[in-house]
Amino acid sequence: MKMRALKALAFDAFGTLFDVHSVEEACEAVFPGHGAELGRRWRQKQLEYTWLRSLMGRYASFEQVTDEALRYAAASLGLELSSESRARLLQAYRALQPFPEVSEVLHQLAATYTLVVLSNGTAVQLHTLLRRSGLDGYMTRVLSADEVGIFKPHPRVYALAEEALQLPRGEIGFVSANGWDVAGAAAYGYWTFRVNRQQMPEELLGFPAAAVGTSLTELVRVLQT
Amino acid sequence: MKMRALKALAFDAFGTLFDVHSVEEACEAVFPGHGAELGRRWRQKQLEYTWLRSLMGRYASFEQVTDEALRYAAASLGLELSSESRARLLQAYRALQPFPEVSEVLHQLAATYTLVVLSNGTAVQLHTLLRRSGLDGYMTRVLSADEVGIFKPHPRVYALAEEALQLPRGEIGFVSANGWDVAGAAAYGYWTFRVNRQQMPEELLGFPAAAVGTSLTELVRVLQT
Repeated sequence: MKMRALKALAFDAFGTLFDVHSVEEACEAVFPGHGAELGRRWRQKQLEYTWLRSLMGRYASFEQVTDEALRYAAASLGLELSSESRARLLQAYRALQPFPEVSEVLHQLAATYTLVVLSNGTAVQLHTLLRRSGLDGYMTRVLSADEVGIFKPHPRVYALAEEALQLPRGEIGFVSANGWDVAGAAAYGYWTFRVNRQQMPEELLGFPAAAVGTSLTELVRVLQT
Repeated sequence: MKMRALKALAFDAFGTLFDVHSVEEACEAVFPGHGAELGRRWRQKQLEYTWLRSLMGRYASFEQVTDEALRYAAASLGLELSSESRARLLQAYRALQPFPEVSEVLHQLAATYTLVVLSNGTAVQLHTLLRRSGLDGYMTRVLSADEVGIFKPHPRVYALAEEALQLPRGEIGFVSANGWDVAGAAAYGYWTFRVNRQQMPEELLGFPAAAVGTSLTELVRVLQT
């Protein structure tokens, strides 16, 4: 597929537009010495629960899953989670900052492409994050897995972008920091770009990214060539 | 549900009947100093890939997923995996030993219940393991996710036991070491027992085990009360 055929770009939110590193800092503030490991386990369990609930056919909102994952992660480290600490840590997810290049990159891309967000987060979560960081003006639509009651990488979630944009899937690019999310979107038929900031190995799910870069700035470069 | 209503028991295989600890030992033999971490990442990625491929609708056999997960796990640790090492580590999965109490427990339970295996592993993998460890005589049926082309915890996998046993689901008990597997079976409607050997926290997926013990010996005790 030629990239010049793309008319729209759909962006994942957590870890792609928004830096989840501050969540680890909040974990460290609440549980000194355990921040990195608690943050890692929390994120891992959050993803697991989205996949497991989706497979079980027992959807719950990303907020609920995030809360349950935090409680599991704390328990797995033997940490006593007070209701105050729990509220404080969940609040960290509502106050995420975008990566430094995001605003400028979206500004450039918006001149050529229709931009949308396509995320596991709920519409309320996503709108709040976009508004707080001044990115809401760039996004034509905010698409949430919550609308279809199942999480990524189920094809029904990726279909939301095709439906909302009223474009054939070959004209849509999907951008995510998560290799498995890229695989899901590529399996669906989108052109894909992986922001691989930590230079993790490629996920072996049969659907590698069409292009990879270490920041969203490289996405602009890739789309111009 | 009264437990005396149970007529059959379905057992998960990996980590439940068969001890996967020897895989870690094989990892340590091949990559000294990295065995525990490689084993942990391999197992984690193996599960992830079963869930992700199932959600994507891109099933591949448990053997293939296990191989791909190994390659990812080794790469994530910066370990060079030769084809010889790869073959040796995959072989470790074919040579798993049952936990020490398994044979005696199955012997006792077989007097009262119809016993089956219900696993993500392929029929060939499972039959090989059962035969090598002399447990095949206790199992009426070996049921594999491979038959339905999707992995646990999708309800279609748990349905295999109900169909094979020709019993209402309320008369079937399901036994697993994995909290998420127990959640999937409980959501489907089976009575559940979790063998929680490492005393991990309960998974927060809305479907806790009906009973929990630290070995299968406790399952016998629970069923007798």
